[in-house]
Amino acid sequence: MGVIVQKYGGTSIATPTLIKSVANRIVATRQAGHEVVVVVSAMGGHTDELVGLSREISPNPSPRELDMLMTAGERISMALLCMALIDRGFDAVSFTGSQAGIVTDAAHGKARILDIKATRIRASLESNKIAVVAGFQGVAPTSSDVTTLGRGGSDTTAVALAASLKADACEIYTDVDGIYTADPRRVATARKLSRVNYEEMLELAASGAKVLHVRAVEFARNYQVPVHVRSSFSQEQGTWVVQEDKSVEQAIIRGVAHDASEAKITLQRVPNRPSMAAKIFRALSDATINIDMIVQNVSSAGSTDVSFTVPESDLVQAESVISDVCREIDAPGYDVDPNIAKISIIGAGMKTHPGTAATMFEALGDKGINIEMISTSNIRISCIIASKDLDAALNAVHDQFALGTLGDTSLASGETLSEVSEGQLSRPSQDPASKKADKRGE
Amino acid sequence: MGVIVQKYGGTSIATPTLIKSVANRIVATRQAGHEVVVVVSAMGGHTDELVGLSREISPNPSPRELDMLMTAGERISMALLCMALIDRGFDAVSFTGSQAGIVTDAAHGKARILDIKATRIRASLESNKIAVVAGFQGVAPTSSDVTTLGRGGSDTTAVALAASLKADACEIYTDVDGIYTADPRRVATARKLSRVNYEEMLELAASGAKVLHVRAVEFARNYQVPVHVRSSFSQEQGTWVVQEDKSVEQAIIRGVAHDASEAKITLQRVPNRPSMAAKIFRALSDATINIDMIVQNVSSAGSTDVSFTVPESDLVQAESVISDVCREIDAPGYDVDPNIAKISIIGAGMKTHPGTAATMFEALGDKGINIEMISTSNIRISCIIASKDLDAALNAVHDQFALGTLGDTSLASGETLSEVSEGQLSRPSQDPASKKADKRGE
Repeated sequence: MGVIVQKYGGTSIATPTLIKSVANRIVATRQAGHEVVVVVSAMGGHTDELVGLSREISPNPSPRELDMLMTAGERISMALLCMALIDRGFDAVSFTGSQAGIVTDAAHGKARILDIKATRIRASLESNKIAVVAGFQGVAPTSSDVTTLGRGGSDTTAVALAASLKADACEIYTDVDGIYTADPRRVATARKLSRVNYEEMLELAASGAKVLHVRAVEFARNYQVPVHVRSSFSQEQGTWVVQEDKSVEQAIIRGVAHDASEAKITLQRVPNRPSMAAKIFRALSDATINIDMIVQNVSSAGSTDVSFTVPESDLVQAESVISDVCREIDAPGYDVDPNIAKISIIGAGMKTHPGTAATMFEALGDKGINIEMISTSNIRISCIIASKDLDAALNAVHDQFALGTLGDTSLASGETLSEVSEGQLSRPSQDPASKKADKRGE
Repeated sequence: MGVIVQKYGGTSIATPTLIKSVANRIVATRQAGHEVVVVVSAMGGHTDELVGLSREISPNPSPRELDMLMTAGERISMALLCMALIDRGFDAVSFTGSQAGIVTDAAHGKARILDIKATRIRASLESNKIAVVAGFQGVAPTSSDVTTLGRGGSDTTAVALAASLKADACEIYTDVDGIYTADPRRVATARKLSRVNYEEMLELAASGAKVLHVRAVEFARNYQVPVHVRSSFSQEQGTWVVQEDKSVEQAIIRGVAHDASEAKITLQRVPNRPSMAAKIFRALSDATINIDMIVQNVSSAGSTDVSFTVPESDLVQAESVISDVCREIDAPGYDVDPNIAKISIIGAGMKTHPGTAATMFEALGDKGINIEMISTSNIRISCIIASKDLDAALNAVHDQFALGTLGDTSLASGETLSEVSEGQLSRPSQDPASKKADKRGE
């Protein structure tokens, strides 16, 4: 049997008791005949503790030293997990990001994996050891400094290792039991999906589904790594994130995602001259503010309103940039609305189903919910609404597409997953008809 | 000006506030024109926390993984200290043991430093940075694994780095303000020494003075590193540990040390045959029990009593070994006494002053204190007494030698310390007359 990579998040290993129960699960996988590589996060709460310490020292800590600090977290959890495995009679060995050969660029706090030199991990598997690897961290060869991949980076470590080791699967253990058609805390009829394809998962993650990190999904898609998102607190199957299976009919809509953490800024009566948009968004980009949606409507009076959304955490800084820009481009002013939410529907099937957007807008309209902004990709439609309407909107859209009752395409028991092929960088081939420009009835 | 190595222990950096105050002290040293290399322990209490976590996981944790776990401690403190220094406008960079080039053998938990490849530290000093190094840790090149030097190992890291960098001095900052003629909590008239030589400090450390780690003193002696033990909570001069100055008359006795953490075991009527002692102490050594003092008196009836002391923490295991040995060698049984204490007087001057031991025994006898065991080196005399008599014994001996009033040899202000010479492995030359066998009046 082949290699299984298992990733355990902070809540799954928050206490010594939980660490011992995770050890039992790893042992069971090993006893089923698999070679096991484990990726761990810091123990739940510990990362926040370390961030708290750094804030007591400095309002703006050195990025290199912040990375040095943060990487203490996985060091603790991985050593404890190895102790528990060795206690159960299984040889186990822990590796820091550097020891595991996770080579990154030198961007502290948000480093990108450039290469994985898994020599030591392979050697430990060959000598029948369980390899336990620190998630979230790497080493930048240019400086020999320790780097981190940013929050959620442990998912990326796990998927990247699975790709490099040509693992049969990458299991992401977390505190929820899979990907749902909507957030079950807000939509009572939400249903767990047994299967999602990479493109859909990318859009779900980017639209606010927090279960899996966007960069991890990109890695999984690029290297065709089958990912299994499941709970560390039960034995149930979770959700498989895999390549689209052309032979099975696609669901039109796979799920509804939401994000209530953004704010909307509208610049009023921006003069209708070339390069106005460039000026606005270059200034925001120079201040490293992430923009999500942008909407601009041409108005008749020689000027236009430009709206965009930013994370609420960047709002203060964005306002300061925008008030400068307004003076520069002769716009009379701007409005800010922090009380907004984004609701998105995602599904590969909408590429071939015109009218999907209209159906969504009708569902919202029927409940008297006003749509403030609209944005689309080829498999996603997002609307900005007032945050007070979010729960009503989620339930209305979820019902309208009958997501709580529709069967989704399940993996038949024993079905073989497509094999992982390292270095296969091509994206899954797309239906040439399914371009962003195709009609959806808007 | 040259390099100063400063080592800060756990109590000196136990909180963010203390870390910031240590940063101020480092900045002051830097502003006085020195290049500064800082060695830090884990924040006070954190090491115990990590040990506690490991015990919750396993009664007998893997030594490799225990080292991986423990080294998280200095990672946190050194990153926080660098952040504080950078905040004060001084460029600082942290180094793990491995990054600092601290090469050790592979004995996890008690590794010995084999070499220091301080390339990165030298480069950081050359580019005007303050180097902050994790104490207590290294890397074993045979396995590329992380090692620790054992508790107190940060002192050794600091002194070894000072030797390698040919530093002007190694400052050991701690929560006491120097080396005293006796423990000031037990002897009211105890006096801070301004100067102690390496040999005396070695015996003081080995006899229970906890301020400096024995291995660090050995390193300082072997490489002639001037060590300054002082408090991180005051600006006062502490105690210099330096090479013996032949030109200055030596004090007969430098100080009185004690150790109340041992227990005494006596084997009764051991048959007077060859290799009995070898059998006893080989068995204890095989069980890795540390023996301190051993006393054997020849008795007339063809048998003898053999007594020795062990750390109280090893007592249970030692008893189990000894009851087996008694059966094997036909000894009728053994006594255990945990209520003992060791009192030692130390001074290079006693080599040339016969009668020092007699003076010590008289001081104890005058107070009616019974001496249970005696052991000596060429500059130390130790007695085992009942632990209830310890305070009375310390004060009696301290008074008898007038340690509270005698002037000790102080460093004149501005006096140049002997230069550190890397690679100079020879011990300071000893007076050929001062062998262990010389008469002291016992």
